[in-house]
Formats: sequence, structure tokens, C-alpha cells
Amino acid sequence: MDAADLLAFLDESFPQAARLRVRIEHVDEASIRLRLPIDESHLRPGGTVSGPSLVWLADLGAYLLILAQIGRVALAVTTNINMNFLRRAEAGRDLIGEARLLKLGRQLAVVEVSIRADGSVEPAAQATLTYSIPPRGAAAYGVR
Amino acid sequence: MDAADLLAFLDESFPQAARLRVRIEHVDEASIRLRLPIDESHLRPGGTVSGPSLVWLADLGAYLLILAQIGRVALAVTTNINMNFLRRAEAGRDLIGEARLLKLGRQLAVVEVSIRADGSVEPAAQATLTYSIPPRGAAAYGVR
Amino acid sequence: MDAADLLAFLDESFPQAARLRVRIEHVDEASIRLRLPIDESHLRPGGTVSGPSLVWLADLGAYLLILAQIGRVALAVTTNINMNFLRRAEAGRDLIGEARLLKLGRQLAVVEVSIRADGSVEPAAQATLTYSIPPRGAAAYGVR
Amino acid sequence: MDAADLLAFLDESFPQAARLRVRIEHVDEASIRLRLPIDESHLRPGGTVSGPSLVWLADLGAYLLILAQIGRVALAVTTNINMNFLRRAEAGRDLIGEARLLKLGRQLAVVEVSIRADGSVEPAAQATLTYSIPPRGAAAYGVR
Repeated sequence: MDAADLLAFLDESFPQAARLRVRIEHVDEASIRLRLPIDESHLRPGGTVSGPSLVWLADLGAYLLILAQIGRVALAVTTNINMNFLRRAEAGRDLIGEARLLKLGRQLAVVEVSIRADGSVEPAAQATLTYSIPPRGAAAYGVR
Repeated sequence: MDAADLLAFLDESFPQAARLRVRIEHVDEASIRLRLPIDESHLRPGGTVSGPSLVWLADLGAYLLILAQIGRVALAVTTNINMNFLRRAEAGRDLIGEARLLKLGRQLAVVEVSIRADGSVEPAAQATLTYSIPPRGAAAYGVR
Repeated sequence: MDAADLLAFLDESFPQAARLRVRIEHVDEASIRLRLPIDESHLRPGGTVSGPSLVWLADLGAYLLILAQIGRVALAVTTNINMNFLRRAEAGRDLIGEARLLKLGRQLAVVEVSIRADGSVEPAAQATLTYSIPPRGAAAYGVR
Repeated sequence: MDAADLLAFLDESFPQAARLRVRIEHVDEASIRLRLPIDESHLRPGGTVSGPSLVWLADLGAYLLILAQIGRVALAVTTNINMNFLRRAEAGRDLIGEARLLKLGRQLAVVEVSIRADGSVEPAAQATLTYSIPPRGAAAYGVR
């Protein structure tokens, strides 16, 4: 699936993502880059992007990267997230999420995600996520 | 801080939690139990509670448990979340989040959280979370 | 497999464990308890038990607990370890490792392990470990 | 500290590392690369490098990288290890461990480590490790 296919899938299955105006800036066979405009719904009192918003972006990036490889017939589900929160991400700058495949096996996929504020080099958060990929035929599209 | 103090803090600082009607069923010097009614905002297509909703509940439970011990003058920030997603949590049943302190040090607190659907024994998710506690005097209330 | 079967398997397949005199104090369908006498090989300069020794004990406990359930025909391999080091464990006291099953699925098993010094209530380390269980027939005994 | 200083420290404080002939191939202000010859002590039955050996290498690389920045007067201790085991590493090829700083704060340092067999592009394991750095004056050299 290319970026247009992924966006169509996103609109259909994750209306929240569409509403939040996530953009797919790049996708290939090993990596993806997302851009998330920050709005009030992501912020804690004080103007810091909340932890769950960062987790949400990491999970979305990793999930779309896997989907781009194996297609929407397959149904990957998150089994583990490990995230380190490194620096405050603040209101007023988009978040850039970059995911890369560490492994795409038959049963498991492992993805690393780095998130930074647009214009920064240093990461705001870094995560590794594991997805279970069910045997072919065992799962239907869209139930994630 | 007892449950009433924590709720007052929650209303003031995390309006989202108030809106979602999180309840604190129990809190003591080593553990806390939260109840979260599940509504549409937590669900993925297919009726499964989303990963970020589970992360949000775990983070809230761990954060309130630490706050209950050290008070609102201190400012704990999440530095690491590790979460295992074990079983689907589905619409129609409240989620119960139970957190217990593994360590409350001067610089770091580590909390384990188990989440299950109300009425289930088996966990839907299990997490450990680490919080950095700044030196006294270095942080003000409310900027989390 | 009961404790005697597990010990026989251990002697045969993990001579290091035998040499280190690990004991299985308890095993049932959901948990296991190991006791590890501490010797020089586990210590860092200063007399603290090293991180890798704690990881080794956690991995052994979780692996034996899974083996006790599914038998030695199956071949579980560790896919993820997350460990929090909470308090120094020092020379002169055995380590007690207690593991419990969070999930035993067809493809994945997740185990939590708590490690403490004998006589202590507070944990020295806490870990969650994930194992991949290959489809039946896909793997032979002993290649782990 | 440069590579020679780190090696001298290693010989003195971690005789095991010296015996295992770990080499420091590169170190700078953000990254380090270690080479570990594999011998029998690292292998499981079947000839696969054991999980704890991979953890040991990751911990050593991350620790030396931090030491290279803050010097031996400071005393960093591991507080969290999260490691994904991605592909079997087998006997007969050195392991290459590459660590890079994600964050070096006043209280916490976070390091990512990738481990691969010499000659491979794909990682055998990937880890993130967190170290607690005590306040200056609070700790003496060598007690790690």
C-alpha cells in the first residue's frame, strides 16, 4: 500500500486520525514519516503534549508501516509498547514521527519510532512496538 | 492526599478525566484502584478498547498513586512506559485499573499497573511506568 | 512437567544453571519460585549483584514456568525483556525469583517476574518477558 | 574519557570484560561501537548466543558511552533495560554493539543499543537502557 492507500484506509477506519489531520510524508519498504499538527486535545495543563498523544502517534506510525508492507487483508495487533519520554514537546510545533522496521517476521513485527518537534534534531520520545500478525486466513480486515 | 483530594486535583488539572467519569475506588500508601466507564471515544472500529486508552488509564492510575504519596507540590513526569496488551477489552464493561508502588525513591518512582474488564480475573493489559521526581524546590505545581 | 522434570531438563540443557545451584522451590499451573545462591560470579566490584545476573534469573524462571505448562517438545524463545532495577541486591543472601503467567496464548506467552533478596519484602528487580511459541511441529527440542 | 581510558577502567573494574576480550572500536560524544568475540560461555545448547549475553553487551556499551561523557567520578546505575530479540546470533561471528545517546540529562541518561553479527546489516537485538546519575558528590567511584 502506498501513502494514498494508507490515507484512504485511515479515513475509513480511524476517523480520529482524519480529524486530527495526520499526514503521511513518506513511506517505503522499511520506514514511514508522519506529521501531526498539535491542537488543544493533545495538551496537558501548561502546554506540554501529553504522554498518551505521543503513544498514539507512535502506534499509528508503526501500524501504518506494517500495513504498507503486508496489506489491509492482514490484521496486526499491538502486543507491546515501550516508550521513553525524553524531552517536553510543546504547543505550536508539529510533531514528526519516524518509524522503521526492525523485523517483519511471520508472527511478529517490531518497529522503532522516534518522535521530535518539527525543527528539532533531538527526540521528544523514542519507542519500540511489537505487533502480532495472525496466520493468514485467521483474521478479517477491520476488526483491529 | 486521599481520594477526595485526588478527585479535586483531577477536576482542576485534567478536565478530560472528569469528563470521562473516572472513579477512584480505593487508594492507600501502596496501591490505587480506578474504574473507567468505556464510551465510544475509547473504541477502535470493531468495538475493542484502543491501546492509547489503556495507556492513558495506566498513566493516570500511576500518577495519582504517586501524587497520593508525595502531594501536589511535587511534579512527577513520566519517563518510561512499558505496556503488554494481553487480551481484548471490549465495549460494555468498565475497565478496572489497579496500580501498586514498586519503588518510591527520591528521584524515581516505579509503578506496576494491571488493567482488566470489570468481572474478569485475567488482565487485559499490564504495564510498568517510571516517573522522575524533581528535587524539592525545583518545580511548581500544575505544569505537568 | 513438575519440578523434578524441570531440574532434569535444566541439568541436561543448561549446565550453567546446575553449576550455579539454582533450586526450584515451587511450580504450579500459573507460577514458579526459584532460589539462586549468590557467588562471586554474580557480583560487580563493590559486592552488588550485576544486572545481567538478574536478567538471567528472570529469563530462567519465566522459561521454566512456560516449559512446565507446554512441555519440552515445544521451543519457546525470548522475544522481549523489560526489567526495572529497583534496589541493590547484595552478596550474602540468596535471590528469590517469583514468576507468574500473565498470558499463555498459542503464539505468545507473557510472564512477570519479581526478584528479591531472601528475607526482604521489597523487590530488587521486576521484569516482564515475552516468549514466542512456534506452531506445533515447527521446532524440535533442545535448540533454544 | 577516550577509548584507552575506558579500556583501563574496564580492566580494573570489570575483569570479566577483559577476559572476554571486548574491544572498543569507536567512541565519540554521542556513540560507541564495541566488538565481542563469541566463545562457548555465551552459547546456549544448539549454538545460539544467549539472551543474557546480549543484555550484558548492551549494558556494557551503554555504560561505557555514558562514562565517556561524564567521567569515572560519576556513578551511573542501570534502572531499566528493554530489549527486543530479533534474530538468532550464532557462534562463529563476532558481535558488534553500537550504542547512541538519546538523552544525557542531569538525573537520567537514555541510550539505544543495536547488536548485530559482524557482516550482517540486520540487527540480532535492539535495546534501550536507562541509567540514573546521582547528584554530584553523592557517590564515589567504583561501587557500581
